[in-house]
Formats: sequence, C-alpha cells, structure tokens
Amino acid sequence: MKKVTLDVQGMSCGHCKSSVEGALKGLDGVSGAEVDLASGKVDVTYDDAQVTMAAMREAVEEQGYDVVA
Amino acid sequence: MKKVTLDVQGMSCGHCKSSVEGALKGLDGVSGAEVDLASGKVDVTYDDAQVTMAAMREAVEEQGYDVVA
Repeated sequence: MKKVTLDVQGMSCGHCKSSVEGALKGLDGVSGAEVDLASGKVDVTYDDAQVTMAAMREAVEEQGYDVVA
Repeated sequence: MKKVTLDVQGMSCGHCKSSVEGALKGLDGVSGAEVDLASGKVDVTYDDAQVTMAAMREAVEEQGYDVVA
C-alpha cells in the first residue's frame, strides 16, 4: 500500500467530503480516503498495482472538484 | 398557494442546495423550493392548509442548517 495526499479545490461541506471520499473508495485498489475540509487535503491509501494516480484524479474531478496537486 | 422566503445559514455548495430543496419538496403541501446559495435565501411555495412554517423550518434544520428567519 502506498499513500498520497491530493490537493483538491472546491470542497466546502460534509457532502463534498462524502462525495470525494466515496468516489475514491469506489475505485479498485483504493483502501482509504480521508478529506480534511479545512486544508482541502485528501489522504489516499492505495495499491499502485491496481490503480493509477490519473484514475484517482479523474474520480475526484468527476465529482466536480479540481485536483491541483 | 403561499410564498415565503427562508433565511438559511450554512449552505455552501450544490449538495447543500439539493439537500435543502429536497427536504422541503418532500413535505406534503410544499410545491416548490428554490435555494439561492449566494444569499442563503430559500423561496418556498406552499399550501398553508397542508404544511406549517414550523414543519418547513424543521425539515431544513434536520439537514443540518440553521433557519435564521
């Protein structure tokens, strides 16, 4: 398992947190996703044999948020 | 049909808008609910023979927002 922190813009409330965490956890290979609303950081735990960074970014962007790093 | 504008605090995004509009429209007697996020105003169209102001306030508060007027 690897860990990465994504920097996401536009998450403003608990619904946003749930959407982003749900989208990431819905990907095969993602075992954990935790949003910190105050900082806009999302800590993701994943298996890089199963899921790419690009797929994770796309999952977040599909929910309507920008991944800035 | 009557119209009232509720003043709601804490709505920050499209999810919040959907939650509040959905909760109000789910009440018998509410035929329309429209949130303006920028102002925090919610325009509600309702039948006062079927639904009370108290029930509408409660529906919004159950979603986690404060009705201030």
